Amino acid sequence: MELTKQWREHFKQLRAFDEAISLLYWDMRTQMPEQSAPLRAETIGYLSTEAFKRQTSESFKRLLDEMEGADGLTPIESRSLSVAKTQYERNAKIPPEEYQAYVTLVSEAETAWEKAKERDDWGMFAPYLEKIVAYQRKFADYFGYASHPYDALLYDFEPGMTVAQLDRLFEGLRDELVPLIRQLKQAGAPLDWSMDQKAQERICHDWMRVVDYDLSRGRLDATVHPFEITINRRDVRITTKYDEADYRNALFGTMHEAGHATYEQQIDAALDELGLGGGASMGIHESQSLFFENFVGRSVAFLKSVYPSLQAEHPPLSSIDFETFYAGVNEAKPSLIRIEADELTYSLHIIIRYELEKALIQGTLSVAELPAAWNRLYKEYLGVDVPSDAKGVLQDVHWAGGSFGYFPSYALGLVYAAQLTETLRAQHPELDTWIASGEFGPIKQWLETNVHRHGKSLTPNELIREVTGEDISVRPLVRYLTAKYGTA
Amino acid sequence: MELTKQWREHFKQLRAFDEAISLLYWDMRTQMPEQSAPLRAETIGYLSTEAFKRQTSESFKRLLDEMEGADGLTPIESRSLSVAKTQYERNAKIPPEEYQAYVTLVSEAETAWEKAKERDDWGMFAPYLEKIVAYQRKFADYFGYASHPYDALLYDFEPGMTVAQLDRLFEGLRDELVPLIRQLKQAGAPLDWSMDQKAQERICHDWMRVVDYDLSRGRLDATVHPFEITINRRDVRITTKYDEADYRNALFGTMHEAGHATYEQQIDAALDELGLGGGASMGIHESQSLFFENFVGRSVAFLKSVYPSLQAEHPPLSSIDFETFYAGVNEAKPSLIRIEADELTYSLHIIIRYELEKALIQGTLSVAELPAAWNRLYKEYLGVDVPSDAKGVLQDVHWAGGSFGYFPSYALGLVYAAQLTETLRAQHPELDTWIASGEFGPIKQWLETNVHRHGKSLTPNELIREVTGEDISVRPLVRYLTAKYGTA
Repeated sequence: MELTKQWREHFKQLRAFDEAISLLYWDMRTQMPEQSAPLRAETIGYLSTEAFKRQTSESFKRLLDEMEGADGLTPIESRSLSVAKTQYERNAKIPPEEYQAYVTLVSEAETAWEKAKERDDWGMFAPYLEKIVAYQRKFADYFGYASHPYDALLYDFEPGMTVAQLDRLFEGLRDELVPLIRQLKQAGAPLDWSMDQKAQERICHDWMRVVDYDLSRGRLDATVHPFEITINRRDVRITTKYDEADYRNALFGTMHEAGHATYEQQIDAALDELGLGGGASMGIHESQSLFFENFVGRSVAFLKSVYPSLQAEHPPLSSIDFETFYAGVNEAKPSLIRIEADELTYSLHIIIRYELEKALIQGTLSVAELPAAWNRLYKEYLGVDVPSDAKGVLQDVHWAGGSFGYFPSYALGLVYAAQLTETLRAQHPELDTWIASGEFGPIKQWLETNVHRHGKSLTPNELIREVTGEDISVRPLVRYLTAKYGTA
Repeated sequence: MELTKQWREHFKQLRAFDEAISLLYWDMRTQMPEQSAPLRAETIGYLSTEAFKRQTSESFKRLLDEMEGADGLTPIESRSLSVAKTQYERNAKIPPEEYQAYVTLVSEAETAWEKAKERDDWGMFAPYLEKIVAYQRKFADYFGYASHPYDALLYDFEPGMTVAQLDRLFEGLRDELVPLIRQLKQAGAPLDWSMDQKAQERICHDWMRVVDYDLSRGRLDATVHPFEITINRRDVRITTKYDEADYRNALFGTMHEAGHATYEQQIDAALDELGLGGGASMGIHESQSLFFENFVGRSVAFLKSVYPSLQAEHPPLSSIDFETFYAGVNEAKPSLIRIEADELTYSLHIIIRYELEKALIQGTLSVAELPAAWNRLYKEYLGVDVPSDAKGVLQDVHWAGGSFGYFPSYALGLVYAAQLTETLRAQHPELDTWIASGEFGPIKQWLETNVHRHGKSLTPNELIREVTGEDISVRPLVRYLTAKYGTA
């Protein structure tokens, strides 16, 4: 077989494994009978191992070497090669027995974390975290880095991003957000956000239709923890959580996941067989979900346009004027829990985690010192007192799962989304008119052309520069938040 | 790794592939967005090829050889080895390029058959069938056989069954059924079998509860073509078709699939990792679905017990007496279409197909002669005139799909079910009392002990002999049908 055909065949086979594994996972969360769980876990384990073997096999190594020696690769084939090579080398650098021991540790740590959080008992989890941090530091050394060990861990989530760049971005953002949050006024009297599930389902479907999320290549189901999952590029599914006490969760959560899904649906089909399908990074992915959730979903233009039908669907709203409703869905205040935070304060939750995990990996902060450091930063940046570790340092699963380097992507998502939205609006001043009239065709088209179609073929730095003409910057986000939440 | 551990590991990995492939298929039929179809087909293709490679690889051949030379295998391990060896040798006997060409042919033939059936155009399909028959004859030679080439094809569906045995069984059955059907009286005025889908769903769930089908290890969904599918032994799913014009389809169809599923749920868990999970044969599987559908579901004992709640759920029935209702769900009459046939006439549809495909494989009937032969046998056995090939020789997909040797299993299912039910009733004369009082625990227990738990570790001949003390025989089925439909 011709070399580049073999190369493509490798990724087509991997895609098939990905589809199977994604479906096994989706089904586990949405359809599977309870008693199937242990066998399902075993099946996912076997297939994941099989897919991993294909990425680390001797025969794939030979294929890589032949591709490196080949003449006449197209630019996109060269990019495919360099991304695959980097991934291969990272995989090959971790001794298999060490990785196996680490996987076992992480699985035990997640169980310990669950109990520790439930019982508010930091001491139960700390020994696991110490071992995980030790492994992560060792992995960073195996991977190699130019200036900071944390750089080596960022690659999996935000390729090309460095501590030097993040420090600059996040310090700038933090210094603007802290005073902006201090001047927030007290919110008005709380509204009643209750609604029965059936009505929420109808509204979610209605809003998906408005934003033109393509359900002929996807579907919406209910789960406890909402997620988007790509089964294949023509089958991108989302889930949402219907909370009858607060319908904002489902409505804006669905918009969020539909944003992720629209991204996946619009990636150039040809990239699949080059290993370049999927989003550019976790942060770029999050920028697309946040674009739909916040920059569209929580905007005056969108909400005003859907408010009459929302009032018709949910009669208690007929006595609430639009301004009160708008303020209610855009309520911002400092809080303790990241996943409940609003778009204004959210980044500070992330910046706190970034500073802490960077120090843990660098070795300048010990696990023993972590809870106190956490509580100090929450007081300093958000002005809140942390009443317990369960509502503080134990709240997220990420560290138990070994995901060091992941948190920054959440805040970068907001940064990218603001930057992309500013460019989109500069090129198309009629953006709000489009949103207000439910004309999402040109918006989706712009995102496809400028962001989505590229898949993994550009890094976040390259993509932002190409689309906006600027380097990654927090200025657009600061402008957006100041305009929306500032008192000036 | 110890030899038998390696052996088990092989089958555990195959089971994982089976779970993924089954789920990909189930999802395609029940949940998948329409546009996903081409990629889904590709994914199923890749994973099936991968699973097949593992069963035909050099390393598996070495493992087989080592197992053959090993001392101290347990009886069940020896059975595992002999089943796997037979399968390996069958797989190895077909030259891969020939098999590949055949797979392509069959895929084209299915498309041609669909169109030919739609347009009632035998000529469109005949050239494909000629090639398929030629391949099947060649495959039979590759596989090898003692006395009849059709024996070699039966193995995939009914291991151990031969033409000699089938001829004896089916001739005996045919000679009893033809006169029994001739004496059928005209049915009474037709009843109204319409019911809205929601009510059908409630009744299906109610009946599944009555027969104690374990939904904590399964689920019921709606599809155009009902099926049972084993995702894993703790996740056995069924589907049904809700026809608002005739609720008998859904009610008895659900019982049918629940019978298949109960079988799968009760196979000894330890057999999975010996490649002996799954049913003993297609026929034994069908006997379990037919036991629930007909021997339980259409019985006086069962129907009388559920009739009051059925009348409450569906008020039009309150003016229909039980005898009329019972006669309606047990209506029997000669007809043209196999899948719409009743339990009395069904076997003759099968026997016709058996006689024809046996002759095709033997070479004593040509494809050109097939339609006329079909029509002649329908007239002779069922007394009906076939008005078109679409309602005759073109009605089933099996031959287009290359499934020669499959049809007999359907009639054997009835034969086995009657034989097993007679033994069950002889050992437990209280059977009808159990059924009437919804006491399905002891019935399921008896089936588990005698039939289900054995999985593939016994052939149909061994199983029937072990449970009933007799060889396979049509006498119990003839007694059952004569008692139910005879006029004497």
